[in-house]
Amino acid sequence: MDTAAALFVADLIGVAVFAASGASAAVVKRLDLFGVVFIGFAAALGGGILRDVVINDVPPLAFADWRYPVVAAATSLIVFRFHPHVARLRRTVLVLDAAGLGLFTAAGTLKALDFGVPVVGSIILGMITGIGGGLLRDLLTGEIPLVLRPGVLYAVAALTGAVIVAVGRLAGPPGLLLLLGAAAVTCAIRLVALRRGWGVPVAKDV
Amino acid sequence: MDTAAALFVADLIGVAVFAASGASAAVVKRLDLFGVVFIGFAAALGGGILRDVVINDVPPLAFADWRYPVVAAATSLIVFRFHPHVARLRRTVLVLDAAGLGLFTAAGTLKALDFGVPVVGSIILGMITGIGGGLLRDLLTGEIPLVLRPGVLYAVAALTGAVIVAVGRLAGPPGLLLLLGAAAVTCAIRLVALRRGWGVPVAKDV
Amino acid sequence: MDTAAALFVADLIGVAVFAASGASAAVVKRLDLFGVVFIGFAAALGGGILRDVVINDVPPLAFADWRYPVVAAATSLIVFRFHPHVARLRRTVLVLDAAGLGLFTAAGTLKALDFGVPVVGSIILGMITGIGGGLLRDLLTGEIPLVLRPGVLYAVAALTGAVIVAVGRLAGPPGLLLLLGAAAVTCAIRLVALRRGWGVPVAKDV
Repeated sequence: MDTAAALFVADLIGVAVFAASGASAAVVKRLDLFGVVFIGFAAALGGGILRDVVINDVPPLAFADWRYPVVAAATSLIVFRFHPHVARLRRTVLVLDAAGLGLFTAAGTLKALDFGVPVVGSIILGMITGIGGGLLRDLLTGEIPLVLRPGVLYAVAALTGAVIVAVGRLAGPPGLLLLLGAAAVTCAIRLVALRRGWGVPVAKDV
Repeated sequence: MDTAAALFVADLIGVAVFAASGASAAVVKRLDLFGVVFIGFAAALGGGILRDVVINDVPPLAFADWRYPVVAAATSLIVFRFHPHVARLRRTVLVLDAAGLGLFTAAGTLKALDFGVPVVGSIILGMITGIGGGLLRDLLTGEIPLVLRPGVLYAVAALTGAVIVAVGRLAGPPGLLLLLGAAAVTCAIRLVALRRGWGVPVAKDV
Repeated sequence: MDTAAALFVADLIGVAVFAASGASAAVVKRLDLFGVVFIGFAAALGGGILRDVVINDVPPLAFADWRYPVVAAATSLIVFRFHPHVARLRRTVLVLDAAGLGLFTAAGTLKALDFGVPVVGSIILGMITGIGGGLLRDLLTGEIPLVLRPGVLYAVAALTGAVIVAVGRLAGPPGLLLLLGAAAVTCAIRLVALRRGWGVPVAKDV
């Protein structure tokens, strides 16, 4: 499997996972069918559209390839129809978001490198790709964005995954294994930090 | 009148209508003169800027053609000076928003098709163009976005208009009539649904 | 010093100043270390990314040139570590924001003109560049955007600076002096208006 195919697979899993996180968050907010699909779309496609516009791969894949919106819509509809108790969905959003953060950060970093963005910029753009969809979901549903809540190592997890992809690419043509591995590390850091309550310092008031 | 001219006319009417919706919403919030013009701008030009960036028609028309910002600013100033009782403005915002949704969705879909975006992507981009300006207006004025409020067939109305344009274009070169017709259908669905309280299902808590 | 170098210097000072404003606002909100850096980034780089995407200078400088993110991150870390009493930071945010508004508006207007955007569009894009970062900062920290608060001549200050740059460029190749002078005028109008409580009219309820 070449780089393009690996990117496509990682991207599409990320779309499904983030669509599920967005749709779940919208069900929690008691939105109707189209509100649920809309938030699913925004969460699933927002980060990638931003990435593609920034590296000038236009029209972005979300518009150029019908499989992206179809996967986002289908996943949102499945969540709408078969979601578990609303009370349990808040935790589901956090877990799906961690998986999406890992996948989109890894895929975003690799795509930026492939389009000639320098290493530091690619790492930052990868992080923005990973954070963007969830940020949009939280802004639209009136939640405090996950990346801004204290004590959850959100940005650290994304940064680690982006650096792994950037370093791994120096060692040879990156395949699906590198992408999924980096995504798994990001997701694991985030979930363990959530479970154990790990955090980073807060500014002291002198 | 050729396609480009039809697009221009539909676009500019949409700019005026959405600027009026944004300015009215800002007057309701008691913003000052520049706050009113700023929200008018954001509502009128936000969706089109997003569309043009996504299809890489840069700089977007809002910056490349002085008539866009001038129409947005003039409309906002007129609303600021001659608006009716504030109490009546909330309904005015809804009606103007429905007209703008129809015009921008139709124009956005056609422009995306003309720039070679595939049909599914063009329909989605058209909907985003139509929804984008009002979404920005609602986020900036602290309202729940119209597209997320239950029971108003917002996205369904936009989708119908976008599909009409996409199908109509297959039948020949699209003119102003197709654009205005699709916009009218979108606007009518939205307004009738608003009046009758039609809606779509909300997820059940199992 | 030629135009490109002058732009670079003005841009980078603006990045530092807006990063400090964003980081200070985040400290006020008691965000943790990464929340502070994230808001610093968003405030410092948001306006420029928007500008570069709109004029199609991609990848935007924030990703293409490592000095941009490094200056933003370093400034945010310094604010996090050495900020004064939180109680004093609210005023600090306003002053830094005024400086950043001036610098980014001037640099944004000049860069847009250099990329062939017409005069009216360049002035508006310059204003959006100057307003964008602070707007993002305020949306992310849940504050009412400065540009929307009544009585502070925010948009008027930016408009004046943008017009000075546009007119000054007609008189010859613009240097650092023109950029800093326009920025100083914007900043001064804004700060004097803040201090004296100057404002513009609010719509009357008839």
